Amino acid sequence: MSLKKIGEFGFIDKISRGCLVRPANIVKAIGDDAAAFTTDAGQLALITTDLLVERVHFLREAVSGLDLGHKCLAVNLSDIAAMGGEAREAFVSIAIPADCPLEYLEALYDGMKQLAAEFAVNILGGDTTDSKVDLIINVAVYGTVAENELLGRDGAQPGDIIFSTGPLGDSRAGLHLILNEIKADSAQLKSLYQAHVRPAPQLHEGRFLACQPGVHAAIDTSDGLSSDLGHIAGQSRVGATLQAENLPISKALQSFCRRFDFDPIQFALAGGEDYTLLCTAAPQHAAALEKNFKNRFKRPLSRIGQINATGRLEIVYPDGQVKPITPSGWDHFKALADEDHDGN
Amino acid sequence: MSLKKIGEFGFIDKISRGCLVRPANIVKAIGDDAAAFTTDAGQLALITTDLLVERVHFLREAVSGLDLGHKCLAVNLSDIAAMGGEAREAFVSIAIPADCPLEYLEALYDGMKQLAAEFAVNILGGDTTDSKVDLIINVAVYGTVAENELLGRDGAQPGDIIFSTGPLGDSRAGLHLILNEIKADSAQLKSLYQAHVRPAPQLHEGRFLACQPGVHAAIDTSDGLSSDLGHIAGQSRVGATLQAENLPISKALQSFCRRFDFDPIQFALAGGEDYTLLCTAAPQHAAALEKNFKNRFKRPLSRIGQINATGRLEIVYPDGQVKPITPSGWDHFKALADEDHDGN
Repeated sequence: MSLKKIGEFGFIDKISRGCLVRPANIVKAIGDDAAAFTTDAGQLALITTDLLVERVHFLREAVSGLDLGHKCLAVNLSDIAAMGGEAREAFVSIAIPADCPLEYLEALYDGMKQLAAEFAVNILGGDTTDSKVDLIINVAVYGTVAENELLGRDGAQPGDIIFSTGPLGDSRAGLHLILNEIKADSAQLKSLYQAHVRPAPQLHEGRFLACQPGVHAAIDTSDGLSSDLGHIAGQSRVGATLQAENLPISKALQSFCRRFDFDPIQFALAGGEDYTLLCTAAPQHAAALEKNFKNRFKRPLSRIGQINATGRLEIVYPDGQVKPITPSGWDHFKALADEDHDGN
Repeated sequence: MSLKKIGEFGFIDKISRGCLVRPANIVKAIGDDAAAFTTDAGQLALITTDLLVERVHFLREAVSGLDLGHKCLAVNLSDIAAMGGEAREAFVSIAIPADCPLEYLEALYDGMKQLAAEFAVNILGGDTTDSKVDLIINVAVYGTVAENELLGRDGAQPGDIIFSTGPLGDSRAGLHLILNEIKADSAQLKSLYQAHVRPAPQLHEGRFLACQPGVHAAIDTSDGLSSDLGHIAGQSRVGATLQAENLPISKALQSFCRRFDFDPIQFALAGGEDYTLLCTAAPQHAAALEKNFKNRFKRPLSRIGQINATGRLEIVYPDGQVKPITPSGWDHFKALADEDHDGN
């Protein structure tokens, strides 16, 4: 089926189905000039937006519509998670090149709708237009959080313990498989591939952290641990020391790094797109936080380092070596010429 | 100055200046994973988003950064206006090709900031990334409106009078000048050019209409009168008859159409991008509405036709001829091959 044949409004009719999963409080959904909904009193509104561009963030021929749709929404839900919020409404803008089949677009929306339904998020509107060359998708997400539960990047304090809610570096390994057309021929390689194409937004983990005593700051690991920890340190005007041996590196990543001769610490530090949450918490609350997290999510909260007052970021290796950490996560503009999306 | 040289975060630092014009209630602005702000109780939240793509919506070499920035935000503010709302916060996603100079981007943000400040709208965040070929800008705007003042597309009733808050067709004439590289060498041609590149979002007019008795439905004229009236008719399940002689056609458009041999009625019906508001109001309130509008805005509210129950859209010419109106506004996908952006 060609997009040109069904037209913009035919396309909107098609993609509108299944978008409203939580109709309470929704006054206008898709179909008016703007969406309208009532907000809860005493809550903060959160809004985040992310733009994904073909050949920059994804290769259309290398990613299924379903996976791409999942990721477009997941990266935004992850930002709401990093604020401790609950995601509520999503808005999807899409610019479509003439050669993009309708089936691919429907799969893309299905990927978004499946993830949206999982977290009771409505897709309430957006914009559809055409594009000359590249498929372009912008998703904006509205969420809410109680004022006293908001997690920012600027609250870290010297002495705070630094945690990650999940493994680091897997997504970068998955990207390596895709860019080098290496078949994911084992359960371990498949898990790395999945980490890249199907990141799980940690909304439940974000809400959990927001409600625990002593949690001071949080961010999601989108650019890479070194860069994202740099944001916390910069905005909190603190420094940090990581323990290399404590970085949560999955068995799959260890095995991948042995096979392809990479340093897993580098993948964990600079990989990016893991979409775990980094948080910092007062040391006297750290043990209870770890225990409560383990009870709730049946997996560890990884203690990876400590905040200090130096203003510097460093990593300590098991042999006692101390190396400075540079914010070598992915910086779009400086890496324009780097097809590999690798900030190293 | 090259963008690559200053990097993503340098660019964000530069564009962040002047973005927060109404700091009350803002908890987190640019610089965290999401913006955070308190909402007023008893209000509806409105969110709208529009994606502008180079070579589809604008030609970078033909539009100044300042004008492009103005328009990116204006089209979104116009959607909030069409709901009767007050615009409050804006979020800007931008994907930048390597050949786009920093000066152009700064002018683009200046254009947005100037318009945002005019309506006390904060620019609270967004996303910056790179693009392979085209400059891409997505703006999302959050607004509010009291529940009993919300204007939708679905409230028109048979007998309602149809109004436009401003002239129609000027923007399409301005686009003709640009696409055909005709110099705007008179005050009249300049005003048509300005109507296209600097549309004025009618937020004050929208708030005014939302508070007047008897106003039932509204939409902004983005796609073109015929198409936009079609949206009201379709969602309200009504028909409409327009009076050709009453369409608000500016002296500048009349003169343009004489010079270039066009039909001004066609420009008014199918031109698009005028960003006036169309509204429908109960006939017993129509005279007071016109009078109050004139008093408030020092220009007429144009009475252009009437809603009926036929389900059809028609236009009556002064000689008594009646013609069906087809929704011939700009439909992106069907007109993919049409460089001229003309849905006729």
